[in-house]
Amino acid sequence: VEESWFDFLRKDYLQGFPARCGFEVTHVGPGRFETRLVVEEGHRQQDGFVHAGVMATMADHTAGYAAYTTVDRNHRILTIEFKINFFKPARGPELQCRSRVLEGGRSIKASESEVFDIGQGKEKRVAKALVTLMAVPAERLRD
Amino acid sequence: VEESWFDFLRKDYLQGFPARCGFEVTHVGPGRFETRLVVEEGHRQQDGFVHAGVMATMADHTAGYAAYTTVDRNHRILTIEFKINFFKPARGPELQCRSRVLEGGRSIKASESEVFDIGQGKEKRVAKALVTLMAVPAERLRD
Amino acid sequence: VEESWFDFLRKDYLQGFPARCGFEVTHVGPGRFETRLVVEEGHRQQDGFVHAGVMATMADHTAGYAAYTTVDRNHRILTIEFKINFFKPARGPELQCRSRVLEGGRSIKASESEVFDIGQGKEKRVAKALVTLMAVPAERLRD
Amino acid sequence: VEESWFDFLRKDYLQGFPARCGFEVTHVGPGRFETRLVVEEGHRQQDGFVHAGVMATMADHTAGYAAYTTVDRNHRILTIEFKINFFKPARGPELQCRSRVLEGGRSIKASESEVFDIGQGKEKRVAKALVTLMAVPAERLRD
Repeated sequence: VEESWFDFLRKDYLQGFPARCGFEVTHVGPGRFETRLVVEEGHRQQDGFVHAGVMATMADHTAGYAAYTTVDRNHRILTIEFKINFFKPARGPELQCRSRVLEGGRSIKASESEVFDIGQGKEKRVAKALVTLMAVPAERLRD
Repeated sequence: VEESWFDFLRKDYLQGFPARCGFEVTHVGPGRFETRLVVEEGHRQQDGFVHAGVMATMADHTAGYAAYTTVDRNHRILTIEFKINFFKPARGPELQCRSRVLEGGRSIKASESEVFDIGQGKEKRVAKALVTLMAVPAERLRD
Repeated sequence: VEESWFDFLRKDYLQGFPARCGFEVTHVGPGRFETRLVVEEGHRQQDGFVHAGVMATMADHTAGYAAYTTVDRNHRILTIEFKINFFKPARGPELQCRSRVLEGGRSIKASESEVFDIGQGKEKRVAKALVTLMAVPAERLRD
Repeated sequence: VEESWFDFLRKDYLQGFPARCGFEVTHVGPGRFETRLVVEEGHRQQDGFVHAGVMATMADHTAGYAAYTTVDRNHRILTIEFKINFFKPARGPELQCRSRVLEGGRSIKASESEVFDIGQGKEKRVAKALVTLMAVPAERLRD
């Protein structure tokens, strides 16, 4: 059952804005979600670095899906808030994001995400986020 | 002088990821920056709401350009970190973001951004962010 | 009714750690709470400025009581998380904190707090916090 | 040399507000700082739990001293901002805080702190903070 739920989440991750951004899912496990991005020109900011918004979106969305692995199909996950620190400018050509659930209360959950800049065979942690999420019964979102 | 700097910032705002997202600049003033977004399907998340990452990118980038209005052409602005709260799901069809500088230290600055969901002639504040920025001499980014 | 609830909150504010810190309530209104602190040596940090933890406690607790003004006696308010930016070192001899509810959902609420350093007849905004709170039925906390 | 600097920091930690709160230093290492608190009535909030401000002060101050271990005696550490999530109510009778430096740039640093509630032989992570700090030449604080 868990496997089919994880398979569903792999696909569910990629729609709307995250699909437009070009993220890819690399790993799904209990309380874990990992993604990558091949950096394009359209991901950069005015000085040529990867835009903070790209890393924030990746950190938020991956953190949310880490939380999804802890609920069943009748729940949806919404972001209440998040905070993200940027340690160093990221250049690419690849980013990886690793998220894990820190605390899985029934309704309020917290995940953290780390974003790594992968270049020349080395990885550098470039950002870290703390994300607060809410599990909502799916039928309540239909109103 | 200020006018030509503000005109420069209006154009500088729109490149790379923010251009790809489709944001538009609506107002620039001293310590102020305002933008809008016409919401498309590619801005939404799995439940049909505007994705948190879209609002986070808008809040971060607009806050950064509010800070740009307080420095001269020899400085670049980088985001150190930000935090954003999401109050209500946003549906569109339009978002507006209004940012202002809270504190303009010489090197460390703080801005706040409010994001509004505009629909059926009404506006609703859907998110608020607190953003910490750093003004860096432009030549230091070239290394 | 509202008046007696506000009177209750004025007293309820001052117990345990906030009482030990020496805060005083100066104003209570719908979605509003304001407090002050006469700065003592025991509020400072290693360089003689008011400690960040004093301002964080003041910002959190006052934000929480602003949220209390929006619920009834059968609910308790807990802090889910907060973020606080420190703009300038605070010296005293007095601090003031003004909090207001930004968003009053039934269960999840958000307040913001601004902390001012009052000295030599001038006030300076030294910190700003964004606080996420949860209203919990009082009987649930008794377990 | 490192040892005498760490010894200095052990003592420097305990003055002003943190001394008033009653924290104790339990471990100092490169990029690491750990503290504990024996919970008293004066650390609690209106519902009998440890006050969020106590944990925030502990998380901020310990994170700051983790950063102090990475600079020399001519620098002082100031908190730019922090964010803290509270996972569960903390009851005591003891709290422990473990902080480590995530990123040690020359001027801007980031640490994280985890706060544990110790009771009945078990430890429970009750809070986690992400703290942004600035190393300032000591002589600049004297102005």
